[in-house]
Amino acid sequence: MNAASAKKQVMILGGPNLGRLGLREPGIYGLTTWQELGDLCRSWGQDLDLEIDFVQEDGEGSLVRLVHQASDQADGIIINAAAYTHTSVALRDAVAAVEVPVIEIHLTNPTAREEFRQTNLLAGVVDSGVFGFGVHGYRLALEGMAQLLSV
Amino acid sequence: MNAASAKKQVMILGGPNLGRLGLREPGIYGLTTWQELGDLCRSWGQDLDLEIDFVQEDGEGSLVRLVHQASDQADGIIINAAAYTHTSVALRDAVAAVEVPVIEIHLTNPTAREEFRQTNLLAGVVDSGVFGFGVHGYRLALEGMAQLLSV
Amino acid sequence: MNAASAKKQVMILGGPNLGRLGLREPGIYGLTTWQELGDLCRSWGQDLDLEIDFVQEDGEGSLVRLVHQASDQADGIIINAAAYTHTSVALRDAVAAVEVPVIEIHLTNPTAREEFRQTNLLAGVVDSGVFGFGVHGYRLALEGMAQLLSV
Amino acid sequence: MNAASAKKQVMILGGPNLGRLGLREPGIYGLTTWQELGDLCRSWGQDLDLEIDFVQEDGEGSLVRLVHQASDQADGIIINAAAYTHTSVALRDAVAAVEVPVIEIHLTNPTAREEFRQTNLLAGVVDSGVFGFGVHGYRLALEGMAQLLSV
Amino acid sequence: MNAASAKKQVMILGGPNLGRLGLREPGIYGLTTWQELGDLCRSWGQDLDLEIDFVQEDGEGSLVRLVHQASDQADGIIINAAAYTHTSVALRDAVAAVEVPVIEIHLTNPTAREEFRQTNLLAGVVDSGVFGFGVHGYRLALEGMAQLLSV
Amino acid sequence: MNAASAKKQVMILGGPNLGRLGLREPGIYGLTTWQELGDLCRSWGQDLDLEIDFVQEDGEGSLVRLVHQASDQADGIIINAAAYTHTSVALRDAVAAVEVPVIEIHLTNPTAREEFRQTNLLAGVVDSGVFGFGVHGYRLALEGMAQLLSV
Amino acid sequence: MNAASAKKQVMILGGPNLGRLGLREPGIYGLTTWQELGDLCRSWGQDLDLEIDFVQEDGEGSLVRLVHQASDQADGIIINAAAYTHTSVALRDAVAAVEVPVIEIHLTNPTAREEFRQTNLLAGVVDSGVFGFGVHGYRLALEGMAQLLSV
Amino acid sequence: MNAASAKKQVMILGGPNLGRLGLREPGIYGLTTWQELGDLCRSWGQDLDLEIDFVQEDGEGSLVRLVHQASDQADGIIINAAAYTHTSVALRDAVAAVEVPVIEIHLTNPTAREEFRQTNLLAGVVDSGVFGFGVHGYRLALEGMAQLLSV
Amino acid sequence: MNAASAKKQVMILGGPNLGRLGLREPGIYGLTTWQELGDLCRSWGQDLDLEIDFVQEDGEGSLVRLVHQASDQADGIIINAAAYTHTSVALRDAVAAVEVPVIEIHLTNPTAREEFRQTNLLAGVVDSGVFGFGVHGYRLALEGMAQLLSV
Amino acid sequence: MNAASAKKQVMILGGPNLGRLGLREPGIYGLTTWQELGDLCRSWGQDLDLEIDFVQEDGEGSLVRLVHQASDQADGIIINAAAYTHTSVALRDAVAAVEVPVIEIHLTNPTAREEFRQTNLLAGVVDSGVFGFGVHGYRLALEGMAQLLSV
Amino acid sequence: MNAASAKKQVMILGGPNLGRLGLREPGIYGLTTWQELGDLCRSWGQDLDLEIDFVQEDGEGSLVRLVHQASDQADGIIINAAAYTHTSVALRDAVAAVEVPVIEIHLTNPTAREEFRQTNLLAGVVDSGVFGFGVHGYRLALEGMAQLLSV
Amino acid sequence: MNAASAKKQVMILGGPNLGRLGLREPGIYGLTTWQELGDLCRSWGQDLDLEIDFVQEDGEGSLVRLVHQASDQADGIIINAAAYTHTSVALRDAVAAVEVPVIEIHLTNPTAREEFRQTNLLAGVVDSGVFGFGVHGYRLALEGMAQLLSV
Repeated sequence: MNAASAKKQVMILGGPNLGRLGLREPGIYGLTTWQELGDLCRSWGQDLDLEIDFVQEDGEGSLVRLVHQASDQADGIIINAAAYTHTSVALRDAVAAVEVPVIEIHLTNPTAREEFRQTNLLAGVVDSGVFGFGVHGYRLALEGMAQLLSV
Repeated sequence: MNAASAKKQVMILGGPNLGRLGLREPGIYGLTTWQELGDLCRSWGQDLDLEIDFVQEDGEGSLVRLVHQASDQADGIIINAAAYTHTSVALRDAVAAVEVPVIEIHLTNPTAREEFRQTNLLAGVVDSGVFGFGVHGYRLALEGMAQLLSV
Repeated sequence: MNAASAKKQVMILGGPNLGRLGLREPGIYGLTTWQELGDLCRSWGQDLDLEIDFVQEDGEGSLVRLVHQASDQADGIIINAAAYTHTSVALRDAVAAVEVPVIEIHLTNPTAREEFRQTNLLAGVVDSGVFGFGVHGYRLALEGMAQLLSV
Repeated sequence: MNAASAKKQVMILGGPNLGRLGLREPGIYGLTTWQELGDLCRSWGQDLDLEIDFVQEDGEGSLVRLVHQASDQADGIIINAAAYTHTSVALRDAVAAVEVPVIEIHLTNPTAREEFRQTNLLAGVVDSGVFGFGVHGYRLALEGMAQLLSV
Repeated sequence: MNAASAKKQVMILGGPNLGRLGLREPGIYGLTTWQELGDLCRSWGQDLDLEIDFVQEDGEGSLVRLVHQASDQADGIIINAAAYTHTSVALRDAVAAVEVPVIEIHLTNPTAREEFRQTNLLAGVVDSGVFGFGVHGYRLALEGMAQLLSV
Repeated sequence: MNAASAKKQVMILGGPNLGRLGLREPGIYGLTTWQELGDLCRSWGQDLDLEIDFVQEDGEGSLVRLVHQASDQADGIIINAAAYTHTSVALRDAVAAVEVPVIEIHLTNPTAREEFRQTNLLAGVVDSGVFGFGVHGYRLALEGMAQLLSV
Repeated sequence: MNAASAKKQVMILGGPNLGRLGLREPGIYGLTTWQELGDLCRSWGQDLDLEIDFVQEDGEGSLVRLVHQASDQADGIIINAAAYTHTSVALRDAVAAVEVPVIEIHLTNPTAREEFRQTNLLAGVVDSGVFGFGVHGYRLALEGMAQLLSV
Repeated sequence: MNAASAKKQVMILGGPNLGRLGLREPGIYGLTTWQELGDLCRSWGQDLDLEIDFVQEDGEGSLVRLVHQASDQADGIIINAAAYTHTSVALRDAVAAVEVPVIEIHLTNPTAREEFRQTNLLAGVVDSGVFGFGVHGYRLALEGMAQLLSV
Repeated sequence: MNAASAKKQVMILGGPNLGRLGLREPGIYGLTTWQELGDLCRSWGQDLDLEIDFVQEDGEGSLVRLVHQASDQADGIIINAAAYTHTSVALRDAVAAVEVPVIEIHLTNPTAREEFRQTNLLAGVVDSGVFGFGVHGYRLALEGMAQLLSV
Repeated sequence: MNAASAKKQVMILGGPNLGRLGLREPGIYGLTTWQELGDLCRSWGQDLDLEIDFVQEDGEGSLVRLVHQASDQADGIIINAAAYTHTSVALRDAVAAVEVPVIEIHLTNPTAREEFRQTNLLAGVVDSGVFGFGVHGYRLALEGMAQLLSV
Repeated sequence: MNAASAKKQVMILGGPNLGRLGLREPGIYGLTTWQELGDLCRSWGQDLDLEIDFVQEDGEGSLVRLVHQASDQADGIIINAAAYTHTSVALRDAVAAVEVPVIEIHLTNPTAREEFRQTNLLAGVVDSGVFGFGVHGYRLALEGMAQLLSV
Repeated sequence: MNAASAKKQVMILGGPNLGRLGLREPGIYGLTTWQELGDLCRSWGQDLDLEIDFVQEDGEGSLVRLVHQASDQADGIIINAAAYTHTSVALRDAVAAVEVPVIEIHLTNPTAREEFRQTNLLAGVVDSGVFGFGVHGYRLALEGMAQLLSV
């Protein structure tokens, strides 16, 4: 939590391969790039009076450290852990220790995919989630976060 | 789809035990009753220019029939199948045959609960989902629906 | 068994979503509607000197009651339990208590589909079965029933 | 709970196929019909100063609604969920929300039967249970209920 | 069976750790000690005209031998096998060879506990069972036994 | 396919142990021998204007080669793979490569038998199936084939 | 059974790879060849007044046919199905239909080997078995067979 | 090993419930009692020049100690661990430390029984085994032991 | 707990087969005997001002009773349950009821062994553990206990 | 091994259905027939100074015998066991006894296919493998074999 | 793809611990170091007219980024993901998005090792593979790549 | 190994999230920070004449590299792999290649936690372990290491 800050801070975390968004497999993930999504989120953040920190990492340890950092500096976390959703106990442990609200987000609907994607290690430690709305889901997650932070 | 209607129609379906919302276990599900949630949804629908049909059934067959009806008359479905999420192939089959957008919603985060709630038969055939935002999640789902229908 | 009846009585039971036959997903299930299938069955029944009772229900309890009724009044049952094939112990218990011949029927070949459709609770308590012949399978099932009843 | 009532109210719930008791498979379930069992229970209730509401439903949703009703009006529930014992999360959720004592009962010993009957979704949310005493088990359950209500 | 005895003999068997009843974890198992429970059972036996043999052993082999002895001398067995319920094939084999009625009893509801307690090796070879009524369950089991022996 | 032939050719394939039909375990499989069943099928074929090739093999490789041969020369295949239904990926691969209609047939209802018979490797690659009608099922399968070939 | 024969006939069947006995991996299977084992068995048969038919096949279908033949001509079967012990439902079905005594034999102790050798499809349908005595086990099996046939 | 002894010593160990042999369930286990089987074994031992120590225990710990004793004093062990075959790691550990030959024996064929009897903890650490020959199997096991000790 | 005692009492419990330590398989378990280990522990106890009770049992029930006794008289328990670590729910229940600190110890590293040793029923109810240090691990466990008791 | 031969001998074995290569499903397996692949391999063999024996069988037993023959006569084996890769313990046992190098080959990538193709019984006993290069993979396997034989 | 380049570019990726090749456990992996293997590959690349980029990373995220880079700049990828083969969904996702050919390579035969190495997340998304040829397998993989790129 | 060094070198490795020790969830992990624990270890090292290298990393690859470095420079490793204990094959492979002693340590008792923490990939390749003693466990591990290095 960052009580001293005038605006609430929200860290939006992207997991492995998300930096390639919009460049590859647009049939599945759409044409918006990760950079464009960052711009959209910052603009939506302005509407909702939230300050957005928009970061992406391919490494498990780097994401763990970003969660630590968010835990110290941010008022809420929106996380798309991508592949680590299904394999990372380290990320789960990091998120479980966080006291601010955490929202899980996926661009598509992972339940409709491969067997090994049925295991979701993260879902058990987040507060809420949004999936399958594509890029627009980030707008919904930010609204949800605004609501959670206004309580 | 209901092309003739000026306003887009959205059917919000509630599954077994949801009629008891707000009456029992408020510590988990909050104090808002199902009737009050209906009023909220209708009011949010007005903001978003959506006409809301808000119904609940405890029976699997009755929910299947409501999905058939929505499939003929509505432009979108928001469904909280409650316990049937985990056991009903019949409801899955009904939803799979629907051509309009379907959003799955849960008041809490079912992944953080019992083993038998890890099986989600519905998620594989819906388009999108929202969970863990409590009553406010219905507002997010309606916004998401408005977005999906505006495309 | 209905010994007093001049003609043998056969109840043909349809499970959840079958009332939508021919209206949705004709690429999978064909263009014949459930009503038209009923007419075909009644006409095939006439050829085989069988009186046909052709009914469909979406609810598990309602199907259980139809099996009770068939058990008291009919000489044979042909059942397409659809989704309940895979989930209903109640329907299995009802069928297991029936003394007249029971034939299971499916329009398609369910084994070639999702993992959760591999469980067939009904097959263990029926006498015979026919699958994957589409609408024409009902003709084969009626001929099989005529043969079973003529013994 | 029904504090205003002079006598304690106990709802005895029967699940799918129990209405056929005594009519079919008497070798397993005995010759007593469901109606006769109701008379026995009402008579035993009189001995124990309990008012008995004795009801049966084949549908999952109907049973869920009876649990809601018992939750509002009765002082205790004795439930033989039959096949739904093994498949119904909806019924489990309904019973879990009940605050009065709930006793599970089975005429036979279900553990000595098929694999799919080893799953008991209800047992985790009831208080106590009685099985394998046939019709007489209802007498024991009523005595147990009298004891639980006298505390 | 003990036909020569004027009174019917019932052996009540307690498994491992039950000798500590009332001394440890009274929050779960109550304050009645195993000795006091024996006195209660003997007194309830007198009411029901049953002679009670009330014994407890921590060892698997010792319990097996008690079942052999009961098999030769008693008219019925009431057994709380405690932990051996979940692990002992030896005890199951001993009980399976018994010809007099056997009732399984548990003070609490074991289904609502750890995963490894879901396996019940005993239930498949007993006649009846009572669980979750605490100390009072022994009274119900004795009444059930009286009924079984009066047939 | 055999376009040059005036009559449609149907190969009826029998798997391991079927040559012993009628000689052993008549209580389960009836008194008709495999040779008599061949005569029946040829006679039914005449009624339906189908030319029947009726063959049986105990070896997996020999059955695979018969499927290759049928694939080149016949217009349809009716196969009772017996034990290989549950174990042979080789036969599955052979059948999967066939372009003419394939109907699976069983004299009894295999689902009501041992655990290892629940795995059906063949069912996923056949078009249709008939089971549990005994010898008469071959008549139904031939009628079904006639129907499939007349399209 | 072969009642007319003065001497009892015993067929000793060897499965895949046993023809290589003594030629390969003598550290595991010893130095005796399959041919030498046949001579030993015939000589032991003479001691026990049994006529020995000693055959080996690598093919599943060929072994099935040998069991058919033994079923018609022999008074007892001793079978070392080797690898087919773990995979062949066809061989199990053939053995299950046999009415004369069947003894299973293994040179080594298969339980102490790979995971996939833990499945034994044959053991459920044989009468008796001998394993881990190497070549000498055949002597024990023949004595056991002599005993079974003398009853 | 007991090199000083003129005769080789063989300890024959019986597990839980075997002391009841011949008294209960003679339809399965025959009419020979455990005492009579001991006499038979001692007499067979004389034929084979083996000194027999024939003991039975119902307790797991007592059997473990007998294996320790046999390990110090006997030249070979024949063990029928009965139910502990399927559950005792302690007995497995004791047998695994033994250096003299160990033969496992069962009166019936345990593979043809319940699911939980498919686990055999002992088989992986014994040298050889004999099953399904009833009482006569002990004669075969003793002959096998004589052979193993003569090497 | 034993508050009156000047010195803290620690019971060191050994499970099945540990009495054979140093006599068998020294390659795995070393040359120190159980008696010598007792002497070492008593001597280490003197250094740490702890009074040592050093006992071993092969029977499950006897170990359960020792835990009861330790629970009444000792200030801490160090337990090497050997094989019962993997199979005994009775021992787990006994340890779970203990209020003094319990340390689990193994001479070797059991995780690097057979599949059935992966199940550890005890670990879930002990406070701490030490494994794989051989005899010296007992010194570490005693130091750890001294530390736990000094708090 | 064939030390006397001037050229090294390599047996290339094809399993069930491979004789149909190029005739069926060319979209998956290409247009080269099995006979043409044999010519290619013989020609590649000439380049690498290897004598090629190129054989195919549909039967499991026949393949086992070919492995025996190769084991006696060839210096290396390249095997495409097709469906038997996933089901044949007999073939695995035959290959495990071979002392010359064995290379496994697949035209496609079997891991990307059905669940039952994930089990690979052969891979554990071969030395090396090549998959997914289509017909050209045989060239790579032959080069790998030349390299292994030149050591 | 790098169409402008005169020579085709192949990136050879090494996963965790491969940098230690030749330094540790030479009995398993041989004496060639990773640096020497790089020299070999570059030299083989020259023979085949391929430009080689030879890189190794211990981190999952770093490997993911290398795949992204290869996806933009290289014409083909040869990947030895080592331990990440069995655990990394992130790497699988990265490889799945690649459009150029990907060949999986292992120095040894991973199927012949521990249970947890049976899961191969990568194999489902690569085109081809080579395993068990040691260092020489890289030569085969490069030849295979040359062939794939020449199409 | 570092033979030249006067003092033995011990590397103490911490896995993901351990850098947050003492800052978050002190109710579970205590108030000591990772830095303070490092000071304690260095001081305990001085007592035991061991030179301590105390490092922590959140990334899997970074930990793998530290193990490589320790393998070259240290005389022993004490590793708390935290979440990677349950998911990292890469770390297991790195540790398996280490020749100096490796001790696994956990502050709490991981077996008493979530299902996915039951898998321990590391335990199979370490020498010894200590868990559940909190910060003091590091003292015990250092003493154990001193003992292992003094041999």
